[in-house]
Amino acid sequence: MHDSSFERLRREWRQRIDDRMLELVKLQNPSLLYDPIEYVVRAGGKRIRPMLLVLACRAVGGDVELSWDAAASIELLHNFTLVHDDIMDRDDTRRGCATVHTKWNPSVAILAGDGLFVLAYRALLRTESPHIKKIAEIFTDGTMAICEGQALDLAFETGGKVDLPAYLDMIERKTAKLLQMSCTIGALVGNGHAADVEALGQFGLNLGLAFQIQDDLLDVVADEGTLGKTHGSDLRQGKQTFLLVHALAHASADTRNRLLGLLSQSVWDSTRVHEFRDVLEKVGSLRAARTAVDTYLLSARNQLANLTLHDSTNHLLDLVDYVSHRNS
Amino acid sequence: MHDSSFERLRREWRQRIDDRMLELVKLQNPSLLYDPIEYVVRAGGKRIRPMLLVLACRAVGGDVELSWDAAASIELLHNFTLVHDDIMDRDDTRRGCATVHTKWNPSVAILAGDGLFVLAYRALLRTESPHIKKIAEIFTDGTMAICEGQALDLAFETGGKVDLPAYLDMIERKTAKLLQMSCTIGALVGNGHAADVEALGQFGLNLGLAFQIQDDLLDVVADEGTLGKTHGSDLRQGKQTFLLVHALAHASADTRNRLLGLLSQSVWDSTRVHEFRDVLEKVGSLRAARTAVDTYLLSARNQLANLTLHDSTNHLLDLVDYVSHRNS
Repeated sequence: MHDSSFERLRREWRQRIDDRMLELVKLQNPSLLYDPIEYVVRAGGKRIRPMLLVLACRAVGGDVELSWDAAASIELLHNFTLVHDDIMDRDDTRRGCATVHTKWNPSVAILAGDGLFVLAYRALLRTESPHIKKIAEIFTDGTMAICEGQALDLAFETGGKVDLPAYLDMIERKTAKLLQMSCTIGALVGNGHAADVEALGQFGLNLGLAFQIQDDLLDVVADEGTLGKTHGSDLRQGKQTFLLVHALAHASADTRNRLLGLLSQSVWDSTRVHEFRDVLEKVGSLRAARTAVDTYLLSARNQLANLTLHDSTNHLLDLVDYVSHRNS
Repeated sequence: MHDSSFERLRREWRQRIDDRMLELVKLQNPSLLYDPIEYVVRAGGKRIRPMLLVLACRAVGGDVELSWDAAASIELLHNFTLVHDDIMDRDDTRRGCATVHTKWNPSVAILAGDGLFVLAYRALLRTESPHIKKIAEIFTDGTMAICEGQALDLAFETGGKVDLPAYLDMIERKTAKLLQMSCTIGALVGNGHAADVEALGQFGLNLGLAFQIQDDLLDVVADEGTLGKTHGSDLRQGKQTFLLVHALAHASADTRNRLLGLLSQSVWDSTRVHEFRDVLEKVGSLRAARTAVDTYLLSARNQLANLTLHDSTNHLLDLVDYVSHRNS
């Protein structure tokens, strides 16, 4: 799927990013704070956001050696949101491991999340850049958007009907903003021209929208073992997804009733997830979601064509392929 | 207790700080995030930390007009820690009002706390200062210490014997660090000399240690109505306090057994809090705590005597008096 040079780079950079994160968390006291933080960092993950940051830095001709702290920072920020979201969503597993609030308890998880967030700022502020104040502002504004997105997500669980624009606004803030800021900050660390910084931010935003809709799809169609988390997790939590919002808007009266009947139950075993998938197939929601993913990925790719140094973007395109073909 | 000019200044500055905070939180969406945040900000509080920041700025001859954003930031940070601590401590009321996790639910409280924390950085980054990077670093390091202090506090609730040095280390991180950074940041915003920045930081640290031990005392000796939170709250939560750590270390075998008997129960009504207080009185722990408060306040005052512009510190001394005479 990828050329081997991208895979080699991905492994090498991943190690650099992980080392930088571990440096911030290892062998510190008290253990009740740092053990769960280290546990989260060591649990791994695809490290897509810090990879984006470093690739954006390189895409404007910047020195990637200046980007490791900011890259570690973005991944720590992402981990902070995961730890707190898992408490709110009552998710028991993440990346195939017990979540912090399950392995320890909710108090420890609240605190570990807070600690990861503070360490994210610590890493960010180590970045050597004349734009450090602007970088910190973008980081802060982006994080506020993520909190807003998570609040919308919570509100949707208990609120009334959600339409597609409201859903897209939610995932833009909750998911896409973080990929946007990864690219924007990477481009700023690399001292990119304003237009390139903007284009790379838009690239990240569109990639993020595609990424989240892909995630919604995977929750229903992916293999549980590959996914590393429980299948049908969105359904179990009563989450709004692209699929659900689309299906409720486009189903015939009969199909809609069947869908609402399915949704009114609390048990989501494999059989029921499959039944749900069949309804989505029939309404055309799976196809619509795949089209949306492709459209956002196309918009993302188009942003790269406008960059000053558009020759340096091949690995960003590899990352787009990686997102579009991922199965977990 | 205070001269009227300090009271007038306190009211005026408080309004400025509150206005600056409300500017950041009012009329924003989604309401599930911003309503609880505004609720917390409007619930009030003594605003001691932002007052310290502004006073430290003035004590080095700085322009207080440059300090409002940083002052708002410190209070938002403080409120973030309160919202998350209240979830962990299962406290139902704060400042006489229902806590966020009680009025809404724990998920909303986690998120509102996160939002307050992000807004604290947003406010801080608005500060106009050539030292903004250093200010952000001090803010970040101080917040990490607060998380560490809270983790120690949690660990003490379930762990074994805690001695006085371990207790003092915990409150230094959990409480005193925030007062220290308020003063350090205020002095930096005011462009103070390095020695003055350091002395004001030490002033804040000592004031903070006095403040926390005073808090431990108030939980046992204060009037519930004045306190604005439940009496004997520390005891109910099995918290380590100066009083408890001191009493367990200094009681005779008999008194120690009586104390452990009292502590083994889960109900802490007024009668039992009074019984506990009588034991503390007998062991000399109330006196020891008052002596510790006075000692730290003296150290704090001594730091002010060394400042370049030591004439400008009269209101910082008023604040020391305010802390030493407070009854809530």
